[in-house]
Amino acid sequence: MRIATLSIGDELICGRVTDTNSGTIAALLIDHGLRVQRHFAVGDNEQDIIGALLDLSRTSDAIIVTGGLGPTADDLTAQAAARATGRRLVVNEAARAHLRDMYGKLASLTVCRLNDKQELIPAKTTLIPNPTGTACGFHLMHNGCFMFFLPGVPSEMIRMLNETVIGFIQERVPHKRVIRMAHFDIYGLSEPETDERLHGVARPELGLHLGTCVSFPWLRVTLRAEADSEEGANALLEPASGEVRSRLADSIFSEGTITLDEVIADLFRQRGLTLALAESCTGGMVAQRITELPGSSAYFLEGAVTYSNGAKIRQLGVSPELLRDYGAVSSEAAAAMAKGIRRVAGSDLGLAITGIAGPDGGSEEKPVGTVFISLAAQDGCWTKRFRFGITRSQIRIKATWTALDWLRRYLLMKG
Amino acid sequence: MRIATLSIGDELICGRVTDTNSGTIAALLIDHGLRVQRHFAVGDNEQDIIGALLDLSRTSDAIIVTGGLGPTADDLTAQAAARATGRRLVVNEAARAHLRDMYGKLASLTVCRLNDKQELIPAKTTLIPNPTGTACGFHLMHNGCFMFFLPGVPSEMIRMLNETVIGFIQERVPHKRVIRMAHFDIYGLSEPETDERLHGVARPELGLHLGTCVSFPWLRVTLRAEADSEEGANALLEPASGEVRSRLADSIFSEGTITLDEVIADLFRQRGLTLALAESCTGGMVAQRITELPGSSAYFLEGAVTYSNGAKIRQLGVSPELLRDYGAVSSEAAAAMAKGIRRVAGSDLGLAITGIAGPDGGSEEKPVGTVFISLAAQDGCWTKRFRFGITRSQIRIKATWTALDWLRRYLLMKG
Repeated sequence: MRIATLSIGDELICGRVTDTNSGTIAALLIDHGLRVQRHFAVGDNEQDIIGALLDLSRTSDAIIVTGGLGPTADDLTAQAAARATGRRLVVNEAARAHLRDMYGKLASLTVCRLNDKQELIPAKTTLIPNPTGTACGFHLMHNGCFMFFLPGVPSEMIRMLNETVIGFIQERVPHKRVIRMAHFDIYGLSEPETDERLHGVARPELGLHLGTCVSFPWLRVTLRAEADSEEGANALLEPASGEVRSRLADSIFSEGTITLDEVIADLFRQRGLTLALAESCTGGMVAQRITELPGSSAYFLEGAVTYSNGAKIRQLGVSPELLRDYGAVSSEAAAAMAKGIRRVAGSDLGLAITGIAGPDGGSEEKPVGTVFISLAAQDGCWTKRFRFGITRSQIRIKATWTALDWLRRYLLMKG
Repeated sequence: MRIATLSIGDELICGRVTDTNSGTIAALLIDHGLRVQRHFAVGDNEQDIIGALLDLSRTSDAIIVTGGLGPTADDLTAQAAARATGRRLVVNEAARAHLRDMYGKLASLTVCRLNDKQELIPAKTTLIPNPTGTACGFHLMHNGCFMFFLPGVPSEMIRMLNETVIGFIQERVPHKRVIRMAHFDIYGLSEPETDERLHGVARPELGLHLGTCVSFPWLRVTLRAEADSEEGANALLEPASGEVRSRLADSIFSEGTITLDEVIADLFRQRGLTLALAESCTGGMVAQRITELPGSSAYFLEGAVTYSNGAKIRQLGVSPELLRDYGAVSSEAAAAMAKGIRRVAGSDLGLAITGIAGPDGGSEEKPVGTVFISLAAQDGCWTKRFRFGITRSQIRIKATWTALDWLRRYLLMKG
């Protein structure tokens, strides 16, 4: 079944509001084995709505329309639906009764003549009840295409979709497909590297699809299995998931349910270790990420944002000679910072980052993007040189992610 | 000119990722007097992309396509564009040279054969340069419709839109309706307060519109004047802008061209003062914001993320007795932290934040959301108690913004 969404509202196409309804609908449908093929959005303009309905109806079996069912002058969906499908717009007695009922329940709702507009529904349609709002939805069939009209308020729309629309569509799907998905969140491999490693895992001809989505600087790999039965879908998905796990191994930091930061927080709690940070070019980004999670004070002791050499010397005990001989952006400085913050804070782990985030300050030997990360622990101190990104923001974000991923790998190893 | 956007990517129609590009494009175009009429989104499916391009080209004068220009197997946009418009897909020498150049810059980028795909561009098109990524964009004309193809990475897309696409479209608009806008970015007033203060400024019947957009925790007030001429639009906009400035006064931190962080950076440079930070509940967020900007090392000396009492005592010289008597979240502790970091860092200004970000740790006397901010300077030390937000994230963000806004107001006063 080819399904499209159509979101209506000037605010959506002026860039003032991001349309989340279309994504919500897609996510809810996929849980029921239904895939949305396309999203469309137009403003509060009758001709544009009519055009979109007719265009979409030619290439879709069902359209889920949201928005434009309110009481004000710019709510034009019912009227456009009537015109597009050759129906009259008439007072619907059930919609009128629903409005009266809502007026009673919502004492705070201003009853004004405007609301009367919500009684007007195209003829020869079926109402879709809205238990929590004044706007009734409705559905109809035109040119062999089911059209569902729902209000744009997300909470009302979601409930109406779940209670009425999805069941209605499912009953009419001739060959039901079960869809099962698995997510793998990856850090440290590029998109082409990931693709190369996963070569041959997807078997689209059997209904097993693989997609990669970049959320800079990490990647999400998604497996999607489609089959006629739950068992069939699982039989495709499970071996493929095992294959992805074995090929990507510890580059997978999560299977989609928790973030990298949450993974690290869990590991710190499990291992009973504490952390202190010394940041130069990331300027507090790592500390900010660590402290974003509630309960982080159990393992995070302190951070030092040592931008100046003076701060590195005084706060971390880095020797002035070392800074003079090797520079503040060097393997030696990074290691001294990591050991220094570990010592002054009395933490189990000391993590340090120093680098050139640019746009100035680079040299031939140490170009912009050069970053040293060092991790000091009881069992040793590891330091590595990296080259990250192009812009200041990219460099700082990659340095932060890489430092956090180091923590994850170290903590995993200590399990 | 009828303009449409087309966003491409399975992740967009599976509901995993919300498409923000279409809204960003609409907002950027409106600043240049161009309105987007419709948004469309399809998955990584060649037939769907071809169908969308042809459908949209029938009813649009320009289509701005984003996504699907990457190096992997599911990036199908160039190929679909070629097929939809009857062109061959050929190796583009300029795109190849750009790729080689990017490989040089990104030493860490794995050069693998997959990337070669990004050299393939439909024949008889014009490249759109991408200064910060590997994917070149391109544009072409088909069925009287301009089609622009840009990568889906927001930062790359925005730059290419601003530097190439918008100018190209503007030159080809036949009847220009002049739209002039003015933006006022506000911190410290709620949306209803702002609305009340601006009552009567808008004159929609004359073509002068006013909108308020919340970008938590700040607001943007936008005036939009539409007229037949530049002069007409300015005659509406200028007096209204003066009115907004006088009614909102120093709650306006920017007129839309620069961020709060940039305002503060400029003020620091102008005043020749230096800063050190002591953060507790914000965990490095303020330091991160300050250091995000290039050149911040000229005025930012260092930051201390003093989560534990031990760190407050050792790094900032706060007395253990003070912490015992008043607690770490107190006016006294905040002032001692601000003075402490100012003294140890030798900076002109010392800014400290201590509070309860929750979800635990609140009491009746100091509920979750209680935050003390203190600013120590040569001419005094000011400390204030606040109550921010509900969630941990909201509380931290509002504390950070309020601290930065304090800096702005102090630096303005010193002018």
